Amino acid sequence: MTHLYNDARNFREELLEGYVSAYSRLIQRVPDASGVMIRGGTPSGKVAVINGGGSGHFPTFCGFVGEGFVTASVVGDVFTSPSAEQVARVTRAAHSDAGVLFCVANYSGDTMNFGLAEMEVQMEGIETATVIITDDVSSAPPASRDERRGIAGCFYVLKVAGASANRCDNLQTVAEFTRHANERVRSFGIAFGGCIVPGKTEPLFTVDEGKMELGLGIHGEPGIKTSAMLPASEIAKLLVDTVLSDTPAGAGGKVAVLLNGLGSTKYEEMFVLYKDVHTALGKAGLEVHTPLVREFATSLNMAGCSLSLFWLDDELETLLDAPANSPVYTVC
Amino acid sequence: MTHLYNDARNFREELLEGYVSAYSRLIQRVPDASGVMIRGGTPSGKVAVINGGGSGHFPTFCGFVGEGFVTASVVGDVFTSPSAEQVARVTRAAHSDAGVLFCVANYSGDTMNFGLAEMEVQMEGIETATVIITDDVSSAPPASRDERRGIAGCFYVLKVAGASANRCDNLQTVAEFTRHANERVRSFGIAFGGCIVPGKTEPLFTVDEGKMELGLGIHGEPGIKTSAMLPASEIAKLLVDTVLSDTPAGAGGKVAVLLNGLGSTKYEEMFVLYKDVHTALGKAGLEVHTPLVREFATSLNMAGCSLSLFWLDDELETLLDAPANSPVYTVC
Repeated sequence: MTHLYNDARNFREELLEGYVSAYSRLIQRVPDASGVMIRGGTPSGKVAVINGGGSGHFPTFCGFVGEGFVTASVVGDVFTSPSAEQVARVTRAAHSDAGVLFCVANYSGDTMNFGLAEMEVQMEGIETATVIITDDVSSAPPASRDERRGIAGCFYVLKVAGASANRCDNLQTVAEFTRHANERVRSFGIAFGGCIVPGKTEPLFTVDEGKMELGLGIHGEPGIKTSAMLPASEIAKLLVDTVLSDTPAGAGGKVAVLLNGLGSTKYEEMFVLYKDVHTALGKAGLEVHTPLVREFATSLNMAGCSLSLFWLDDELETLLDAPANSPVYTVC
Repeated sequence: MTHLYNDARNFREELLEGYVSAYSRLIQRVPDASGVMIRGGTPSGKVAVINGGGSGHFPTFCGFVGEGFVTASVVGDVFTSPSAEQVARVTRAAHSDAGVLFCVANYSGDTMNFGLAEMEVQMEGIETATVIITDDVSSAPPASRDERRGIAGCFYVLKVAGASANRCDNLQTVAEFTRHANERVRSFGIAFGGCIVPGKTEPLFTVDEGKMELGLGIHGEPGIKTSAMLPASEIAKLLVDTVLSDTPAGAGGKVAVLLNGLGSTKYEEMFVLYKDVHTALGKAGLEVHTPLVREFATSLNMAGCSLSLFWLDDELETLLDAPANSPVYTVC
């Protein structure tokens, strides 16, 4: 459960204040808005990459704000979209003169509010584009990929967007690379137990003892199947097979890999799991690039994990490997 | 609980294999030993900084192996010291020609086994020194500081050791800076609940609903007091007051700060707590340097957190801020 808070109604405001005071060497608060932006703002000639969503998923979303990565994040209450007004305020503060790319995970509240804000700032003369992230293979069949949710694979899409913006690509180019990145990333998650949000005493959902939920969403959205708990080696096979069965059309043989912990499934366990993920990817003939075993998209202290694969080409690899400096991810 | 494993008896071996396959761009397995070392080994002229301990605390200890940081880590079973034989094997593989600094948190199994290994490799002609880390103020009174346990403050001591070794300071100098770093770091932790180790179904310890344990150790060692659960603002005051009441003699007014999560106390909560920690440090007249709100010393998925303060002087600040590149911590 969530132990550390004062008044649950002020949780978002207090976490934002604490986050910015901890990392003020890299980021700053957006004045009069529920968001953070890169310290010093966006230089002239650079597209601003703006994301956001409910809090409770740190470092998704605001942990990726920093040089070479996300320009600004709009922060909602726990598991709740920020309002259109907050998105518009953050956009006005964070944009410079080269336009704005909104890059948002596919949840109805987020896409609606970012969409409303986009119309609002466009009317004020700000050039914009939007890419919706849809990496979760469990949330809709391949023919309806646009309906899929965005989960931990957001990391790759945002990194590509930020790196493209950082080298002063124009808005259309940044949006094209970002869309291409989203086409090349697939994720699949499993859960062993739910979390308790601040101020509550009951979990958002529960998983029966000895069971696991396949494809469950990061806010407890229903999964596709309940399974008996399996040994790590079989879970690795399940994750890899599921993601590979949805390999993007035209993808090559080189993949970046993120094995993501949801909060209370911890590092040593994840390494045990990664051992067999790594082997399975090799057996499938894939070359593995810069694997990461991290907590990049949590759900407070939910138990579970997800596997994201990001099929690289030369351009995506260059953008993924480009320097970045955010509170949780640094590439020199 | 721990969900992801195959045979609990192979947990250490499998996590090591997975960890090294994930981060082979930075680290490598020590052949025929339960450890990891910096990729490519120690260059001539550089002291090897070697640490280690039980697993279950990632990234303490092996997550800090990398350039400018720890040279090699010896990895034990969950919450269990590695054997002297394993320490000796890792030392033989990791040292070059400038000697070895062992830098070990103060737990009896670890200090005994590292001590035995030290004697063994000394007889083989390897020059060594040892620094024992003792940052946990709750585990012994100030007059018996040598008896204190090492917890999350290990990060600072190891970073200073690694940075000093990396600029080719000689063994005596590396050991002196490392000892000085240990004299300047203090930590204090609280726990809300215990963890379940791989293969078990009962937690290592429990904390009653609505209570918290002050000063509880990272393996469930008894704390100093049970308290009613408090709001974050009062916990912040408790942590800051306790650590500041043990301010090192001769310390200046500039501190590095680590607010460390133990596993299932998550990022947003920690930021809420950090808000008041930051304010309290300011009120105490301290200048805060590079705060970190991270999971740097976990206990599997134990619930709780700790505050570490590291009183800087010019030399310690230079060494803390020096470049490093390990799987969990990068400074450009």
